[in-house]
Amino acid sequence: MAASYLVGVDLGGTKILTALADETGNVLTEIKVATEAAGGYAHVIDRLVDTIRQVREQAGVSAEAIKGVAVGSPGPLSAESGVVHFAPNLGWRDVPIKKLLIERLKTRVFIDNDANLAALGEFVYGAGQGVTHMVYFTVSTGVGGGLILDGRLYHGIGDGAGELGHMQIMPDGPLCACGAKGCLEALASGTAIARMAKELVTNGKGQGILEQAKGKADDISAVTVATAAAAGDQEAKKIIAQAAGYLGIGVAGVINIFNPELVVFGGGVMEIGEPIWREIRREVAARAFHSSGKQANLVPAKLGQRAGVLGAVALCREKVAEMQFPNG
Amino acid sequence: MAASYLVGVDLGGTKILTALADETGNVLTEIKVATEAAGGYAHVIDRLVDTIRQVREQAGVSAEAIKGVAVGSPGPLSAESGVVHFAPNLGWRDVPIKKLLIERLKTRVFIDNDANLAALGEFVYGAGQGVTHMVYFTVSTGVGGGLILDGRLYHGIGDGAGELGHMQIMPDGPLCACGAKGCLEALASGTAIARMAKELVTNGKGQGILEQAKGKADDISAVTVATAAAAGDQEAKKIIAQAAGYLGIGVAGVINIFNPELVVFGGGVMEIGEPIWREIRREVAARAFHSSGKQANLVPAKLGQRAGVLGAVALCREKVAEMQFPNG
Repeated sequence: MAASYLVGVDLGGTKILTALADETGNVLTEIKVATEAAGGYAHVIDRLVDTIRQVREQAGVSAEAIKGVAVGSPGPLSAESGVVHFAPNLGWRDVPIKKLLIERLKTRVFIDNDANLAALGEFVYGAGQGVTHMVYFTVSTGVGGGLILDGRLYHGIGDGAGELGHMQIMPDGPLCACGAKGCLEALASGTAIARMAKELVTNGKGQGILEQAKGKADDISAVTVATAAAAGDQEAKKIIAQAAGYLGIGVAGVINIFNPELVVFGGGVMEIGEPIWREIRREVAARAFHSSGKQANLVPAKLGQRAGVLGAVALCREKVAEMQFPNG
Repeated sequence: MAASYLVGVDLGGTKILTALADETGNVLTEIKVATEAAGGYAHVIDRLVDTIRQVREQAGVSAEAIKGVAVGSPGPLSAESGVVHFAPNLGWRDVPIKKLLIERLKTRVFIDNDANLAALGEFVYGAGQGVTHMVYFTVSTGVGGGLILDGRLYHGIGDGAGELGHMQIMPDGPLCACGAKGCLEALASGTAIARMAKELVTNGKGQGILEQAKGKADDISAVTVATAAAAGDQEAKKIIAQAAGYLGIGVAGVINIFNPELVVFGGGVMEIGEPIWREIRREVAARAFHSSGKQANLVPAKLGQRAGVLGAVALCREKVAEMQFPNG
């Protein structure tokens, strides 16, 4: 039998990462290109298809040898119908990505939520190897999540499960992008950190943070705040601790709900490091059930930005195997 | 082959419910006795064993024909070792109930958390029949939960999963019995309703509620508040609406996390009816993701106090079948 290959794609608002792997999931080559989302969905699909051609050529693999392509996309989406319902950072509404890709690629195409695939990537290739129950948090512009339960990615009834950033932990808290108040995402994301700093500056405080943004309040970001905190600015440190504390409250709730053996934390905000971990651990110790808190190992993600694309490879491998051996 | 039978037991702080079923899970007879927890754990075990003898005799079934006994107990507990770690309403600490029952009954014994088994009962015999993803809330003295995910009861790594009452939805909220602040249980349980009413009375308000408790503030309970609310008392109505609103916030978070097709609500507080449902629906509409909110059907439990004992029968059936057909 001729060798067969798998492709994983992580489609993001700014970058497309694409990887080619052999049928055992061993990654042979990877590339990264700009998404150019402003060019519209047809342009993005063109670019995505082109990355697949490139990884094939780099590895010397024919189009016919590709047994499947899995794509992680921002959601909400339907994995089954392969339609991305709404992806603000791509500017997409109801894009039938699966159908469009099948037309172009003439192979099986599988779609899933990007945070789900990042969780699957860490489970198969990264921090979650060998565990059975793993909760994954990604903390960056937003707060996303993915659930590995009983050794499998958990989807819910309509592929909407895992939205850990949209537990509400403060009934009258700040308004979230989702429209609700007091979501974890509105309190603990990079966006939340920037908002807290801007509020401070609006009130005539936070001058150390403002300096990091070269005096432009509009340019204040989570990175500005983190840089000021690392330089010793007390107000910046306090904002980071507050956001991380809220994250810890959400984590404690998740530990009580899932009794996981592992909680994996990825995303840019986690790069702030110990000032974040300290608060997460403090809140978990104070708020989670003793037994479940003790059983939950809290660890950083291992794969960085590659989690999503490797998760897509893992999904592709799983789906292709299911089709070859439908009774498992 | 001789006919074989299964026993399910719901061990509660005040009552023991025991049911005998045939091997298909068809319940033949049930009884209920007082737990008499004050008599100590050996006395409770005696009573439990006696209920099993009674259901056997009622059904004319020999001890040898019993293929297994499953017991739902207040937790936290370890299903595998069969030890109840801590059950305040039984006055138990580290009671090896599985070992004690095996010694007495000479048959297989299975242990699980009471709220888990109530969820399983509703799934197999009640409101959750035929669904795949179901979240169960029980709202009474506390707020408990159980998770049916991909058609199976979800336990987590140490049988601690499903503690939906211990999501924290208010960082500096009232102290919960678990030691954390602002748990759903501390805001939405019967105990929370009574506490809010007592606080009102302490401040010289809530006279309509106080009347229902015959003027004794210490006797105010969730039932007192519900009775006053049903009689039109505005303060009582407001407390009920507030507690139910908090419950709805927790439910919205759970819907975003699990994307379930069904959320089932049992427990005494739910008997208040429409004033509770109205607030749950309002908060879910306002706070859950539109797609996941639309997919989640919110329904009352069907089995009342029998949910736990029927769930124990269902667990027993599942475990006995697994042993007969281990590759299932």
